[in-house]
Amino acid sequence: MLLADFKDDATAFNARKRGSIKNKGSINCRISSKIFQYLATQGIKTHFIDTPAPNQMLVKAVKILPLEVVVRNIAAGSLCKQTGLTLGTILPQPLVEFYYKNDDLGDPLLTRDRLQLLELATPEQVETITHLALQIDRLLVDFFRRCNITLVDFKLEFGLDSQAELILADEISPDTCRLWDNLIETNLETNLERRVLDKDRFRQDLGKVEDAYEEVLQRVLSEVDSK
Amino acid sequence: MLLADFKDDATAFNARKRGSIKNKGSINCRISSKIFQYLATQGIKTHFIDTPAPNQMLVKAVKILPLEVVVRNIAAGSLCKQTGLTLGTILPQPLVEFYYKNDDLGDPLLTRDRLQLLELATPEQVETITHLALQIDRLLVDFFRRCNITLVDFKLEFGLDSQAELILADEISPDTCRLWDNLIETNLETNLERRVLDKDRFRQDLGKVEDAYEEVLQRVLSEVDSK
Repeated sequence: MLLADFKDDATAFNARKRGSIKNKGSINCRISSKIFQYLATQGIKTHFIDTPAPNQMLVKAVKILPLEVVVRNIAAGSLCKQTGLTLGTILPQPLVEFYYKNDDLGDPLLTRDRLQLLELATPEQVETITHLALQIDRLLVDFFRRCNITLVDFKLEFGLDSQAELILADEISPDTCRLWDNLIETNLETNLERRVLDKDRFRQDLGKVEDAYEEVLQRVLSEVDSK
Repeated sequence: MLLADFKDDATAFNARKRGSIKNKGSINCRISSKIFQYLATQGIKTHFIDTPAPNQMLVKAVKILPLEVVVRNIAAGSLCKQTGLTLGTILPQPLVEFYYKNDDLGDPLLTRDRLQLLELATPEQVETITHLALQIDRLLVDFFRRCNITLVDFKLEFGLDSQAELILADEISPDTCRLWDNLIETNLETNLERRVLDKDRFRQDLGKVEDAYEEVLQRVLSEVDSK
């Protein structure tokens, strides 16, 4: 077992932008814990064990695969920059993408061929991860919809436990998801930023970062408590 | 039919570096013509018709797919930058990669999923192109080996002819291939640049750019004339 510390430190653009978001550590720890517990009730194995302190998560020790697995439902971020797709384009089906978790290289996008060439995971592991990622996407889209939030995209990390089984690790929080508020109606092109409830507020200096994270926490808690 | 002009203008790094290479137009036109004629004898359909002037190629008019198809036998260039593979690493099998031919976006790498999402080619076209690219790779590796040149990697473009058949278009020259001289023995890590016979001499300011292009032409002509 390991004790994971959730910090208030924030970084973006491969750590070229640095800052701090007040209470982010404890907020993300609570959001992540609730989501991991929810996923567990739906049959998804995660590294979550317990939350012994507001900003600490007790987790199973796993060997993390050097992959960032990104699931996209709506075009945003680097997908728009690299393909020219308009921000907010609803994808015909969820897109599961693999990035090389390597800060020195800037976490580059991987084709399946490059993933195999670098031997970052076996073909069977890639298949299992893709299946799990799509399953988690369906569960989280539903979960956040009940929170009146649109799940635009999110990043997952997986690890191998002591039985060499692939389980979900890392965190699921406004640091690792793009979340758009469904209670605020805006025109996408003009003032989408009013809807943003995630780290894009920090990346793009949209202000009220802490408020957005706290809002997500409150909605997640309400949704979980309503059960 | 179209008349393609081969110019001496040289660009690199998505046109951020510009210059001129003396006689490049006519050298590349002659190299490309000879290679297209060689490929035709091996059953590969190309847009080549004739070379009416030293720097002009008469070609079939095709609708070019917005894809840069890169075949890699040895790690170099952006593959090294994006994966951390050491320059000169021999790949266990040729790698066929697709890039979005779009200067505004910087010709980004495409996963198969992104290629389908952007509808840049049908799945059948992607399969045909991959098959053709590997076939052309085998033929060109052999061809250049007989010229005492190692074919490191190269870029292809394909187009649809009037019968909607995919045929090889664009050019095949030191502008679009990485070619290393086998007659010069060097230690890869220390002075690989002495072996470089392609546009990397221009990209990296290695000097003697014209000499390298002319050397490739002479060897290609010798190989073709020896038949």
